[in-house]
Amino acid sequence: MTELLYYLDLFGVVVFALSGALMAGRYKLDPFGVVVLASVTAVGGGTIRDVILGAYPVFWVANPVYLWLILITAILTILIVRRPKRIPKRFLLIADAFGLALFAVLGTAKALSLSAPMPVAIVMGTLTGVAGGMIRDVLCNVIPMILRQEIYATAAMLGSCLYVALDYFAFGQNTSLILAISGALALRLAAIYWQVSLPAFHISEKEADKGEKKNKQ
Amino acid sequence: MTELLYYLDLFGVVVFALSGALMAGRYKLDPFGVVVLASVTAVGGGTIRDVILGAYPVFWVANPVYLWLILITAILTILIVRRPKRIPKRFLLIADAFGLALFAVLGTAKALSLSAPMPVAIVMGTLTGVAGGMIRDVLCNVIPMILRQEIYATAAMLGSCLYVALDYFAFGQNTSLILAISGALALRLAAIYWQVSLPAFHISEKEADKGEKKNKQ
Amino acid sequence: MTELLYYLDLFGVVVFALSGALMAGRYKLDPFGVVVLASVTAVGGGTIRDVILGAYPVFWVANPVYLWLILITAILTILIVRRPKRIPKRFLLIADAFGLALFAVLGTAKALSLSAPMPVAIVMGTLTGVAGGMIRDVLCNVIPMILRQEIYATAAMLGSCLYVALDYFAFGQNTSLILAISGALALRLAAIYWQVSLPAFHISEKEADKGEKKNKQ
Repeated sequence: MTELLYYLDLFGVVVFALSGALMAGRYKLDPFGVVVLASVTAVGGGTIRDVILGAYPVFWVANPVYLWLILITAILTILIVRRPKRIPKRFLLIADAFGLALFAVLGTAKALSLSAPMPVAIVMGTLTGVAGGMIRDVLCNVIPMILRQEIYATAAMLGSCLYVALDYFAFGQNTSLILAISGALALRLAAIYWQVSLPAFHISEKEADKGEKKNKQ
Repeated sequence: MTELLYYLDLFGVVVFALSGALMAGRYKLDPFGVVVLASVTAVGGGTIRDVILGAYPVFWVANPVYLWLILITAILTILIVRRPKRIPKRFLLIADAFGLALFAVLGTAKALSLSAPMPVAIVMGTLTGVAGGMIRDVLCNVIPMILRQEIYATAAMLGSCLYVALDYFAFGQNTSLILAISGALALRLAAIYWQVSLPAFHISEKEADKGEKKNKQ
Repeated sequence: MTELLYYLDLFGVVVFALSGALMAGRYKLDPFGVVVLASVTAVGGGTIRDVILGAYPVFWVANPVYLWLILITAILTILIVRRPKRIPKRFLLIADAFGLALFAVLGTAKALSLSAPMPVAIVMGTLTGVAGGMIRDVLCNVIPMILRQEIYATAAMLGSCLYVALDYFAFGQNTSLILAISGALALRLAAIYWQVSLPAFHISEKEADKGEKKNKQ
């Protein structure tokens, strides 16, 4: 029931907080900076979702447990990961993938529960999934994952669409949640592992670089 | 009447979605990534406007037609523009100019209709006009247009101020909309075409670069 | 009473507007661009705070005095500071420090007055303090101050926590405000002056650069 939904939400906050804290380790942030970056990453997507839907009070304002979880995650990350450079980059990608899949589906579920129309629910879900990581990457001046080659937005949208479809055909909420999250996660992890990507709408790297430079002048 | 306002709003969403999709073509985004970038660009400004004004439900949550339009625009862009590198950069600038002028004036009109005071309406309009493009540029790590030399924020503000003035002197809404949008658009297009700019508050390029580098250390 | 709170808020808006206008001087922005960047910096943090707390109408929508103050600050900055390159970088840092300390404490006070739980109030305060400067830096493609070495988020959190503690032990509001703001400001200014920093969670600069480059490919 909604209990599973709640625990999955907590788990999503933890993995995104972890990804924010790991990213913080690439810079010389002091512990409080790590906490702030972890928080913004972890609650960014859900906050934007709640604010756009007008679902007040925002989830972490209503229930500070989320904040304590982020604080604990950030502290544990600092204590355990003494040398961020030794953590393979893939670890951050995997934490981010879990957050992406969880938040995309949970965002969709929340939007539907507030009786948003289906296309709106899919957009809200995708946005919830990608926004936290986007804010993290923009703050760190790293190119957001959504702009890189591997399947990213696609995985979030798959999760959203799956959940909308399963919910429409009246599967139980728990079943729908688990199937949709698994689908999105499997797609994203496979994309990371085999570096798969969909045929892209692109210009050659060289040309893009040139365009970029001209653009910046 | 409000019918014109609605169609202009749809048109603004289409041109900003187009500018987002074209920008996406500079990176190797898969089709879903293109849709996400187009959406964020197209509804970003209006969403911020509605959220700040507390005008719930947010326009695209209330009316999913906007989302379908963005989806269609993104798909058509991908299908028609097979080689983004062949599209002159100016094309993106012009789409952006239309979006800027439309949203600046429509944002002002919406704020006034919610009985915001005049200076607030001008700020909301300018913000609505520039925010979508800002988010697009920040996500793509391109310097936001507002920070470049040509008249940009100025055009948005001109549109806002014109609309406030015309509305104050009780011109019909349709006349006010068309005059204000035309004014802002003409100014921005002229600035693009002749590369006009106002006298700037600046330091020489070389010095700025130095400052920047020091800053980043 | 709330009068002091109001004047401090106005002062915070002025110093953040100043920091935004000074940052604008590093680019070739025309006067309207300067006004937009100053506005976003000055009201960004408080707007996010009010929107997340659902405290409608947002402060500057309710009271346009804030906007006039920003306009005047931006114009004065342009008129007085004829050559931004001659202004030492430290001046921008100090304006930012005042804004940080003021908004962190005032954000906390506003959250508490809306009966947010303590941890939420601390997060809202920290967010209010750091968000305006973050938006300014992200728009200008400068690495956000929070990601640099000196005590930054720490100072904001200290201010928030101090205010929560003083308020809890029923000090008068004026006393609490002044003590908390002074504490945060003193810590941040000391960090700027002596370039103090807490022990960081980091990788060596060289390795970080490498990681960054790989990341961007």
